[in-house]
Amino acid sequence: MRVYLFVLLLLPLLLPADDGYRLWLRYDRIADEPLRQAYAGMLGQLYVANANHPVLRAATDELHRGLSGLLGQSPESVQELPERGIILGVAEELSGLVGNIPAINASKLKAEGYRLFHHNGLTYVVGRDERGVLYGAFALLRQLQRGRPLEDLRLVDNPRYALRLLNHWDNLDGTVERGYAGGSIWNWHQLPDYLDPRYTDYARANASVGINGAVVTNVNAKAIVLRADYLEKAAALAGVFRPYGIRLYLTARFSAPMELGGLDTADPLDPAVQAWWRDKVEEIYAAIPDFGGFVVKANSEGQPGPREYGRSHAEGANLLADALAPHGGTVMWRAFVYSEEEPTDRAKQAYDEFVPLDGQFRDNVLVQVKNGPIDFQPREPVHPLFSALPGTPTMLELQITKEYLGQGTHLVGLGNLYGEVLHTDTYAEGRGTPVASLIDGMAGVANIGAARNWTGNLFGQADWYTFGRLAWNPDVPVGTLFREWAEQTFPGSDSVQRVARSLLDRSYDACVSYMTPLGLHHIMGPDHHYGPGPWVSDMPRADWTSVYYHQADTAGIGFDRTATGSNALEQYPPTLAARYADPETCPRKFLLWFHHLPWDYEIDHGVTLWERLCRAYDGGAQRVTTMRRDWEALAGQLDEERYRSVLMHLNIQEREARWWRDACLSYFQTFSRRPIPSDLKPPAHDLEYYQSLSFPYAPGIRPQW
Amino acid sequence: MRVYLFVLLLLPLLLPADDGYRLWLRYDRIADEPLRQAYAGMLGQLYVANANHPVLRAATDELHRGLSGLLGQSPESVQELPERGIILGVAEELSGLVGNIPAINASKLKAEGYRLFHHNGLTYVVGRDERGVLYGAFALLRQLQRGRPLEDLRLVDNPRYALRLLNHWDNLDGTVERGYAGGSIWNWHQLPDYLDPRYTDYARANASVGINGAVVTNVNAKAIVLRADYLEKAAALAGVFRPYGIRLYLTARFSAPMELGGLDTADPLDPAVQAWWRDKVEEIYAAIPDFGGFVVKANSEGQPGPREYGRSHAEGANLLADALAPHGGTVMWRAFVYSEEEPTDRAKQAYDEFVPLDGQFRDNVLVQVKNGPIDFQPREPVHPLFSALPGTPTMLELQITKEYLGQGTHLVGLGNLYGEVLHTDTYAEGRGTPVASLIDGMAGVANIGAARNWTGNLFGQADWYTFGRLAWNPDVPVGTLFREWAEQTFPGSDSVQRVARSLLDRSYDACVSYMTPLGLHHIMGPDHHYGPGPWVSDMPRADWTSVYYHQADTAGIGFDRTATGSNALEQYPPTLAARYADPETCPRKFLLWFHHLPWDYEIDHGVTLWERLCRAYDGGAQRVTTMRRDWEALAGQLDEERYRSVLMHLNIQEREARWWRDACLSYFQTFSRRPIPSDLKPPAHDLEYYQSLSFPYAPGIRPQW
Repeated sequence: MRVYLFVLLLLPLLLPADDGYRLWLRYDRIADEPLRQAYAGMLGQLYVANANHPVLRAATDELHRGLSGLLGQSPESVQELPERGIILGVAEELSGLVGNIPAINASKLKAEGYRLFHHNGLTYVVGRDERGVLYGAFALLRQLQRGRPLEDLRLVDNPRYALRLLNHWDNLDGTVERGYAGGSIWNWHQLPDYLDPRYTDYARANASVGINGAVVTNVNAKAIVLRADYLEKAAALAGVFRPYGIRLYLTARFSAPMELGGLDTADPLDPAVQAWWRDKVEEIYAAIPDFGGFVVKANSEGQPGPREYGRSHAEGANLLADALAPHGGTVMWRAFVYSEEEPTDRAKQAYDEFVPLDGQFRDNVLVQVKNGPIDFQPREPVHPLFSALPGTPTMLELQITKEYLGQGTHLVGLGNLYGEVLHTDTYAEGRGTPVASLIDGMAGVANIGAARNWTGNLFGQADWYTFGRLAWNPDVPVGTLFREWAEQTFPGSDSVQRVARSLLDRSYDACVSYMTPLGLHHIMGPDHHYGPGPWVSDMPRADWTSVYYHQADTAGIGFDRTATGSNALEQYPPTLAARYADPETCPRKFLLWFHHLPWDYEIDHGVTLWERLCRAYDGGAQRVTTMRRDWEALAGQLDEERYRSVLMHLNIQEREARWWRDACLSYFQTFSRRPIPSDLKPPAHDLEYYQSLSFPYAPGIRPQW
Repeated sequence: MRVYLFVLLLLPLLLPADDGYRLWLRYDRIADEPLRQAYAGMLGQLYVANANHPVLRAATDELHRGLSGLLGQSPESVQELPERGIILGVAEELSGLVGNIPAINASKLKAEGYRLFHHNGLTYVVGRDERGVLYGAFALLRQLQRGRPLEDLRLVDNPRYALRLLNHWDNLDGTVERGYAGGSIWNWHQLPDYLDPRYTDYARANASVGINGAVVTNVNAKAIVLRADYLEKAAALAGVFRPYGIRLYLTARFSAPMELGGLDTADPLDPAVQAWWRDKVEEIYAAIPDFGGFVVKANSEGQPGPREYGRSHAEGANLLADALAPHGGTVMWRAFVYSEEEPTDRAKQAYDEFVPLDGQFRDNVLVQVKNGPIDFQPREPVHPLFSALPGTPTMLELQITKEYLGQGTHLVGLGNLYGEVLHTDTYAEGRGTPVASLIDGMAGVANIGAARNWTGNLFGQADWYTFGRLAWNPDVPVGTLFREWAEQTFPGSDSVQRVARSLLDRSYDACVSYMTPLGLHHIMGPDHHYGPGPWVSDMPRADWTSVYYHQADTAGIGFDRTATGSNALEQYPPTLAARYADPETCPRKFLLWFHHLPWDYEIDHGVTLWERLCRAYDGGAQRVTTMRRDWEALAGQLDEERYRSVLMHLNIQEREARWWRDACLSYFQTFSRRPIPSDLKPPAHDLEYYQSLSFPYAPGIRPQW
């Protein structure tokens, strides 16, 4: 019998495990002791004007929660103005109370805006309204979490857009379409009675970044959510959201008057249909007095809509808008539509359908436009509709989830995508007309699920954060937001923060490069959109295939959208169109989006398109290896649980980036008939191997029972 | 302008929030300071023989984790025998080391068994094998968590059954059939690269109660799980399980040789089919050397099976058994089968199909039999097969999830169901032949999902706990297990523990009473099996309807399974059959299971069946009200998060118990044509109301896209 006398010493982990549930609202005790004591000395008391208002109560509650974590002590709530401490309230109410402090003046504040400042030993959180106070309280906590000094605090912050929404593509059965972080966080079955504490934490997280609306149901809508029992469930959710300044919205199925109301038509001009919606909306507002309104996907991908009755999208949207108007509700009508006929260029469809309707929508309708004209591709030029609807308010719809961007496993900082879209100059009214100046609100398709850390991939939290902060103010540099997130998510470690920011910053371009460089698009696996599938050609519609989009042949590659092709370019303002029309001035990142070019086209001095394509794919994959190594080097510098979680995902991303590279180059080589540059590794397998892979249970498609 | 000077003092919660993730392995610091110090004095050092063995490392790791939590200090790992402390090891190895301590003698230990004892200042955790040591370590932690003294510790504990399994009805797409706690915890898409820490915590929890096998896929199986890439995923899971003594099993789709192998038959007597399975099993063992084997649902509810080829269940099972035998693998062949033809009594089918096959199965086949002959009804008499397969090993299949027992919202302590089944005397070999003595293993259909607390309903954790402990030793009184769970789950509060135990103990009878009293069964809503549906009559098969089972008419109610009816009674041993055959001796709880009786049948002196039925429904519902009140009275005595979670579920249960009562009485009254006793509340609504309710998204059915 062998006896092992060696005893393994099991060291307890240096840092406690962390499941990521707290997001960026960690409120860990500040490690820098002098700083902590300085804060504690300044924030020991809390005076709130009108403390009973539910929104102010939420703000106060959050300050107690945050300060007791960060400082180790909760502020004392006082009923008279303290000498030192926090003063919290709405400007109008405070100004009568605390005397003549000019900074309290509400004149610079817009609705929901706030002012943070320090004066005479007191730290003021002043809102234009209660929601402003709430946002100010979160902003103060953000300062503290980031270790910023309070003494010279002087911040006026107003939201750019009134509508800052999350769109949840969550189904009533608990699944999430294009969701990669587990099931839905909404437990419709147990609502209204069971209120998951997560609902409150969700609302807190949103409020902390300024999100003020949540569309809780999928755009592929079911009528039943408008049934009385479901409205009761929705009302319970709305009740949780309300103190956090979040209005609840629902998706409306256009045919609901037939399915729920028993009518034989849903024609928007039919008086019975109009009456049904009027009554239904009244019923909704009786249950949810601050109901936000409807998001509608109509006549798109099988959803019912006004076109069945020969009516326009404007007539359809106005039907709902008229029902909502008396209650202050809004319709967001999605421009992501495409007709049953296969188009010569799907990129042109939304423009063609909506531009003729400009000016015909009611005031409380916004047309909701995806950032690009196809469908959330890794990179798209901006949608031509933004500059073509001067008479119609528009919402910008962005992805926070990552349907075409690596789903739940790839680390891809979407902030740079958002920034690129918002700051793209459309030249709609001459130079200096960025998309951000043309829109009236922002909607982000949520990446939130039942995963313990909400987003599955830890860095997906950054996308949620960045989206919300940009919807509040699109002009904050994205790098600043990455820094904010990293400081709050990894407090206490400069090196982890530095790497985290760098990964967020580098990863978007890397992803585009290993998936769809140079303007390629829509070449992923069918249905689930997981992994490469440039060979996909056998689908029910041509515009669902990959070959439709990349148009590769022995002559070259790319979709000709110039005048010699589909002329989608004509939908853009002339300055932009002219720049995109010439391959020499077209940004390289959009080259194959707009042009079909020969494989030998010289893209750099002496470098052909084919070689450039090879080097782009290779470079993208290599950058992921660098990203993985940079993170790996952080071992021991943060808690093991989050460290390993990110590392495991980066390992997957590294392997899949290589897969994208190898599969796409193997495939395109069958057309280019040129060698892969000899200094690059050849693909690991042959094309048949990549084409043979199947993923029937990749997330994002309908469950296969 | 009104100024509110009243300031709400927000008290931090007395007890920290608790999301329930830690289950019964909380390891909170022991509040009783003298006790904690006494433990600390005894357990300061840890000596492990053969510390490098992965299972012993898991045991040691758990002791470090547990003791550092409970005592505030981790034991010092030492390499020489200490004076005081813990000695951990396999009996054979230890006995050579520590000299002549009789208690180390392995003679009383069976495989996986362990011995805990205190001797000369040392606390010994001695296993027959490494797994025994692991179970012993968890048993020691259980003692500490329950505050039990160590000095007179003297425990020998061997498992009754070698097979103690969880069956997960989890689909590869992340959904769970009959799952009420969110999606699947298995992320097949991200396996094998992403190993969720939850997998380890799952294994720890199982090991702590003695569960040693996990069937990770649904019995409604997909062949693809046997494909090479999925086997790699399964192997990664098995690697996490292995140090915790848990073997991984898969479900085998009988037609896999056709779907995966491209054969044109799955006939078990076809040599090519036999070769395919032989090769496939070899491939599996190459990836998973300790693979447990297959669970198979064949020729049942649309699943393929040997009957397609005119072969018997034995021939089908033996096909797989022969492939597995060389590797030590096992087949669990489910007896839950019913043929395409509608039977006169479905309760008789499994017996009729399997009894003729007794003795024909290979040695490594177990027939897996649900506790009752129908399908996990709230209460069923035990399955007649248990006493009818003397030549065939059997597994008892129990529900831990609650398909027919209130799903995710009702608090129903299933321990009493398990106890009732295990201790039912079948009289198979005369008095004293309980089911527990006739089976060779236990399988529990898991209630685990991605919910933060694993089971959705906090008290569902108790069902998991109780199942595991009973599979280890079916003779431990269920009340003892309730106490164990409550002490570990709510440490430090006698009153909370007392109420928790009492709720577990009372709730099963209450549930049966408000759902299916007096032997009624299968009268719930169609498909999802949520809520009452005694009126259900329009289904594709008669034996899927409610009216088939309750047989209510103006003459009476109940399914005649005596000689005048289906004579299902003849399937039971004569003593039991005779007792059930006479309504006077038949246990009242099975009365309408076996008898069709007139409404005026006198069930108590002067009390008619109808009145008894009314009082049963009413009493069940009333007991839930008492349960809810008892819990409500605990406000402030435990953390708010768990308190409110349980209370919200009890509120739902209270309302739904009343719904069951009112709907069933309203319906049955249409046949009884008798008044509801005047001292009972009339139903809240009329029958039409209850029949009009629809729940298309109730959990448990296929997602409706």
